[in-house]
Amino acid sequence: MTIKLYCFGESGHSYKAALALQLSGLDWEPVYVDFFGGEARSPEFRQNVNEMGECPVMVDEEVRLTQSGVIMDYISEKTGKFGGATREDAREVLRWILWDNHKLSSQAGMTRFLMNFVPEDKRPQDVIAFTQARLGNAYAILDGHLAGRDWIVGDGMTNADLTCCSYLYYPEPFGFDRTAHPNIDAWLDRISNQPGWKHPYDLMPGSPADRA
Amino acid sequence: MTIKLYCFGESGHSYKAALALQLSGLDWEPVYVDFFGGEARSPEFRQNVNEMGECPVMVDEEVRLTQSGVIMDYISEKTGKFGGATREDAREVLRWILWDNHKLSSQAGMTRFLMNFVPEDKRPQDVIAFTQARLGNAYAILDGHLAGRDWIVGDGMTNADLTCCSYLYYPEPFGFDRTAHPNIDAWLDRISNQPGWKHPYDLMPGSPADRA
Repeated sequence: MTIKLYCFGESGHSYKAALALQLSGLDWEPVYVDFFGGEARSPEFRQNVNEMGECPVMVDEEVRLTQSGVIMDYISEKTGKFGGATREDAREVLRWILWDNHKLSSQAGMTRFLMNFVPEDKRPQDVIAFTQARLGNAYAILDGHLAGRDWIVGDGMTNADLTCCSYLYYPEPFGFDRTAHPNIDAWLDRISNQPGWKHPYDLMPGSPADRA
Repeated sequence: MTIKLYCFGESGHSYKAALALQLSGLDWEPVYVDFFGGEARSPEFRQNVNEMGECPVMVDEEVRLTQSGVIMDYISEKTGKFGGATREDAREVLRWILWDNHKLSSQAGMTRFLMNFVPEDKRPQDVIAFTQARLGNAYAILDGHLAGRDWIVGDGMTNADLTCCSYLYYPEPFGFDRTAHPNIDAWLDRISNQPGWKHPYDLMPGSPADRA
């Protein structure tokens, strides 16, 4: 059976799971969720798909999982890929997934949303400035960690890379400048050069162009 | 050897790990980090203890771990406690740990910090109002999930409970009102009635009283 991923193109959190499915070589297909039309926050979605009102949601026959970090862990268990080579590496992968959920993607996703997907006269400028400052610390930590390394954990690509990279490929401005972080810049190229890699708007249905 | 936990009383993220150590019955001791004096963000701490500049950090002989979710996972592996009874439950525990890191504790911790530990004339009121609104959604999801359940996952206390409860015991105001969320309220009592449970300011060194 083909694995289904409930997702939408603008969702960097969905992209983590979609990219893990894509690069692992599993048979999968996206199921479009009309997030901007309110579908993910609807009572039906909360009751039948995800009480947290969020994407992504993965369905593999009887298994239904939410939270990108859980889905990536499941894919690693199923394929042996991206989970880290040793028990120690697996812990280090989880460490970066948690850090990303707390400090990087959560704030990058929200800042991009506020700067691009909220009507211009309703954008909370103080909140945007605040989260951009916090994101500056996160970029510095990631860039520092990648100095002299090809991958965040160990000698190959893992879920740590897939989780942290996700929002950094989007074209909408949110204050991130690749050229200001040379180690992140080179690492993003390293990931996008992997066979099968696709940009979020090519890998998942839905993009700002659809609503233009 | 006694397990060491680098932590400080005000840190709800540290409290998750401290509570897991405490309730699992392991031999452990806290090592005070002078966060408010800047210790966790110092170059020495970043180089020698944690490049992410954060607490908690756990040291068990040769094993050094950061991120509360990783430390809780390690404690579960070592003791067989709080990790979930089945593989499915373990995934559900991880799901709530990730959700908590993204939507609950991250925002509760920040909002409490801004409302209590930043000088009164420097508190960003727009940011506080924004994160309080987002936290309202998180409380509603947790309270809804706990309707008719004693614990977040399965039939007993797990790391899902320990991660989500942590900031909700602190006395400083951040917009959370236990009485407005009856399922959360009863569940917090259920946790604090466990043998060995201690309030964060009793379990870890350091509290606002020290700086008064």
